[in-house]
Amino acid sequence: MTDFVDSAVRPTVTTGPIQGSSKVYRDVAGARVPFRRVHLTNSEHLDLYDTSGPYTDADAVIDLDAGLTRRPVTRDRGTQLQRARAGEITAEMAFIAEREGVSAELVRDEVARGRAVIPANHNHPEAEPMIIGKAFSVKVNANIGNSAVTSSIAEEVEKMVWATRWGADTIMDLSTGRDIHLTREWILRNSPVPVGTVPIYQALEKTNGDPVEMTWELYRDTVIEQCEQGVDYMTVHAGVLLRHIPLTVDRVTGIVSRGGSIMAAWCLAHHQESFLYTHFEELCEILARYDVTFSLGDGLRPGSIADANDAAQFAELETLGELTKIAKSHGVQVMIEGPGHVPMHKIAENVRLEEELCEEAPFYTLGPLTTDIAPAYDHITSAIGAAMIAQAGTAMLCYVTPKEHLGLPNRKDVKDGVIAYKIAAHAADLAKGHPRAQERDDALSTARFEFRWEDQFNLSLDPDTAREFHDETLPATPAKTAHFCSMCGPKFCSMRISHDVREAYEKGMAEKSREFAEHGNRVYLPVTPA
Amino acid sequence: MTDFVDSAVRPTVTTGPIQGSSKVYRDVAGARVPFRRVHLTNSEHLDLYDTSGPYTDADAVIDLDAGLTRRPVTRDRGTQLQRARAGEITAEMAFIAEREGVSAELVRDEVARGRAVIPANHNHPEAEPMIIGKAFSVKVNANIGNSAVTSSIAEEVEKMVWATRWGADTIMDLSTGRDIHLTREWILRNSPVPVGTVPIYQALEKTNGDPVEMTWELYRDTVIEQCEQGVDYMTVHAGVLLRHIPLTVDRVTGIVSRGGSIMAAWCLAHHQESFLYTHFEELCEILARYDVTFSLGDGLRPGSIADANDAAQFAELETLGELTKIAKSHGVQVMIEGPGHVPMHKIAENVRLEEELCEEAPFYTLGPLTTDIAPAYDHITSAIGAAMIAQAGTAMLCYVTPKEHLGLPNRKDVKDGVIAYKIAAHAADLAKGHPRAQERDDALSTARFEFRWEDQFNLSLDPDTAREFHDETLPATPAKTAHFCSMCGPKFCSMRISHDVREAYEKGMAEKSREFAEHGNRVYLPVTPA
Repeated sequence: MTDFVDSAVRPTVTTGPIQGSSKVYRDVAGARVPFRRVHLTNSEHLDLYDTSGPYTDADAVIDLDAGLTRRPVTRDRGTQLQRARAGEITAEMAFIAEREGVSAELVRDEVARGRAVIPANHNHPEAEPMIIGKAFSVKVNANIGNSAVTSSIAEEVEKMVWATRWGADTIMDLSTGRDIHLTREWILRNSPVPVGTVPIYQALEKTNGDPVEMTWELYRDTVIEQCEQGVDYMTVHAGVLLRHIPLTVDRVTGIVSRGGSIMAAWCLAHHQESFLYTHFEELCEILARYDVTFSLGDGLRPGSIADANDAAQFAELETLGELTKIAKSHGVQVMIEGPGHVPMHKIAENVRLEEELCEEAPFYTLGPLTTDIAPAYDHITSAIGAAMIAQAGTAMLCYVTPKEHLGLPNRKDVKDGVIAYKIAAHAADLAKGHPRAQERDDALSTARFEFRWEDQFNLSLDPDTAREFHDETLPATPAKTAHFCSMCGPKFCSMRISHDVREAYEKGMAEKSREFAEHGNRVYLPVTPA
Repeated sequence: MTDFVDSAVRPTVTTGPIQGSSKVYRDVAGARVPFRRVHLTNSEHLDLYDTSGPYTDADAVIDLDAGLTRRPVTRDRGTQLQRARAGEITAEMAFIAEREGVSAELVRDEVARGRAVIPANHNHPEAEPMIIGKAFSVKVNANIGNSAVTSSIAEEVEKMVWATRWGADTIMDLSTGRDIHLTREWILRNSPVPVGTVPIYQALEKTNGDPVEMTWELYRDTVIEQCEQGVDYMTVHAGVLLRHIPLTVDRVTGIVSRGGSIMAAWCLAHHQESFLYTHFEELCEILARYDVTFSLGDGLRPGSIADANDAAQFAELETLGELTKIAKSHGVQVMIEGPGHVPMHKIAENVRLEEELCEEAPFYTLGPLTTDIAPAYDHITSAIGAAMIAQAGTAMLCYVTPKEHLGLPNRKDVKDGVIAYKIAAHAADLAKGHPRAQERDDALSTARFEFRWEDQFNLSLDPDTAREFHDETLPATPAKTAHFCSMCGPKFCSMRISHDVREAYEKGMAEKSREFAEHGNRVYLPVTPA
């Protein structure tokens, strides 16, 4: 990354363990599978799934110029899908099984059936293997990337590290401004998680922003460039067909996907079917060579409550189902992107249809936002929809930040978006009965009930902010073991009284047992008078 | 409120219209029903339900010492429930029908059936009538109140005005510190919305915090004091019975309701049944005299995912059903409080059981939080649960702020909590198909698609923050009509391209029509080549 050496704005990133935690590794088939170990004050600990890479390892030496350590990759035996079908448990599958706490055979089987994907480009050996599928914990993607208006490479590299620190499972680099290739290079070489892109954004920069000038050759070369570089999954809006465009004309918000609108503009201008659709098999052959995963984009996703679940959206979904079959016949892994803006009562139908039309390929949804009326809070409007759609079977949630519809997210927005989506994903894991999900809730609630404030902070999704909020009113050290907080004060602490109640009850039971014995164990004397 | 005259910290509150809106009134049966009118740049407008009282009326003169203007109240004909049963459409019902955009007969009928309540103490004529019931728009309550550790009267009055400015439909004053009576007096005389309390908090101050010293007489006198003062609804934890306490002993988080823990401590210490339960009919007689509404508290609500929907919780709910019948037989309006912490897959069961056991009395729930692991973000963990439980039929949502479990909310937390809950309530209104709910979404999304940025801000739940976020990157005035934002920049704006697509499509259709005419209108020539 020598291009960068002379720049005054070399990236620097956030490093060091998350408060109260340290990095531990479990050795599996020659690989070191990372976990975040939360150390509790009662000398217990809890190991958590950890997306943050070496940046939170106190012993790691971070050299952004050199990039992260590369793991060994098998390049000559095809894609994870092909190898799973052949019955092979790959090194990546073994790694994932340990991370998820499931059997390697389950991992292999879900991949073989196309119900899960392992986005792992042979040329991105810096990333730690992970899986996206409904049988596994729900994943979260964070979008980063500069635009023509704002942001620099250094900021984007830090956003990548920052997003994974708080739990992002994958990153999409959606840069559209200058230095797209170089920005991506810095991100790829330093990212501990898979990286996705939307290749048409870079292709469009090459036509200086004119969709009409786009050609299949220009797009294809961009895809190959990104495959070579190590991009793990690519959004391809191959489902936007000429015949779908009239279906969008009476919408309240038309076409809101950038890729979708670009392809629609191209199709109309040329009066030709989308080159992504007509050249799809060629695209499959390219992606198969690197084991890049398709993320079939929903170019016609609804951008408002009014447009949810309409004919345009579902017509495209049907085309995505057709493309899914083609991709899988080439051994390419596939996931399907989903909406958008959807009111709560229309959410489940999206999952049902996706599974029916796309052979249960992993669903990867943006939100959905459950109302249009809260710009500046769309991480919340969409966390509601995200939790519900994940409960219904969505495998990965693309985060939405508070800046959605208003501007490009900054570092704070990235964290707010990631945390909101970790909440949605975890709520869904609980609702789906995912093994081990409730361990963390139980550990935190037990700490809460036992007034172990430090443990309560450290077990939370964001220990820094939990502690900061507590300390706003009770900053003194003794308050960290106090049997109350400023919310109710000492006299009204229900948990303190609840301990007294429990003690009184147990004392009462002991007395009753004595009485019972004194009465010759003959009759049952109820504790409670009528 | 002369007690306050000498104080150095006289309350001052936020006044003035919300950005882009003005107050309008519709005259109904001698009353002026308020709306917030959003003025759009295309010379249209949208009138919204408005909870903010005269504080957002540019023409109103606010005098906190004198309190708000008092509306005429009929005191001598019983409660709204009794009058509804007698077939009367009260002034309050007419007011509410206009506010909600429904027929007055629907309001009367729902109140008569006990499926809705109008919390309107005869002694609180400052409040604007409102209704809580599943047939109406979902309501939001904001808790305020000082504790022994923090906060002053002036802060609490401003929090009340601030919470209603952003859409709180009722306020609960949960003060537990000094000056409880005086704090409440300032809030009641100046609140445009109904005010709820938990009388046992003040009663406990009178025993200096010792639950064991509590007596029925002391509690009763506190209730009468609050009824006289004008409290509109009261949380009464009369469903916590001696026999329920053993059911809580093995819980992860015991009893987390303050009132519940106080009553459990009292019952155990005295080995007697709860005085709230044994004196319930006397309590009904008192509340009926003032038309104060019961909010039957869920003293045994779950405080963690592990304890959700357990035997203790549902045993109490059964008792609340029994008490509902008694209250209604006295003509007292009743709502039922609900959890708490509940994973998503167990939420609907709460509504189903509540409706079955409590004759569909309005359900009033705290969240529920859908996971325990995100202290500092529990407005989000609970907005997810709140939206879902409201979709299932909950009539009012008690907000949770980011400070939940950590400390007392400040002014910023109050706003964050209210906005998160307005989102949840509105998402539920959409999902329930509430008439007119989608008007606002459609207006905002249309403004978005037409690049009317000012209208997009002003139609949102929080115009100030939406504008601020936009202006962080594009502060210049021309950006307010620009056909892009900093999120994608001009080249990648899907909405701009979408307009081009629509234009191109319509132009193409026009050409095709010409061709069609030229071909003698004989054959259909498809726009799209195969």
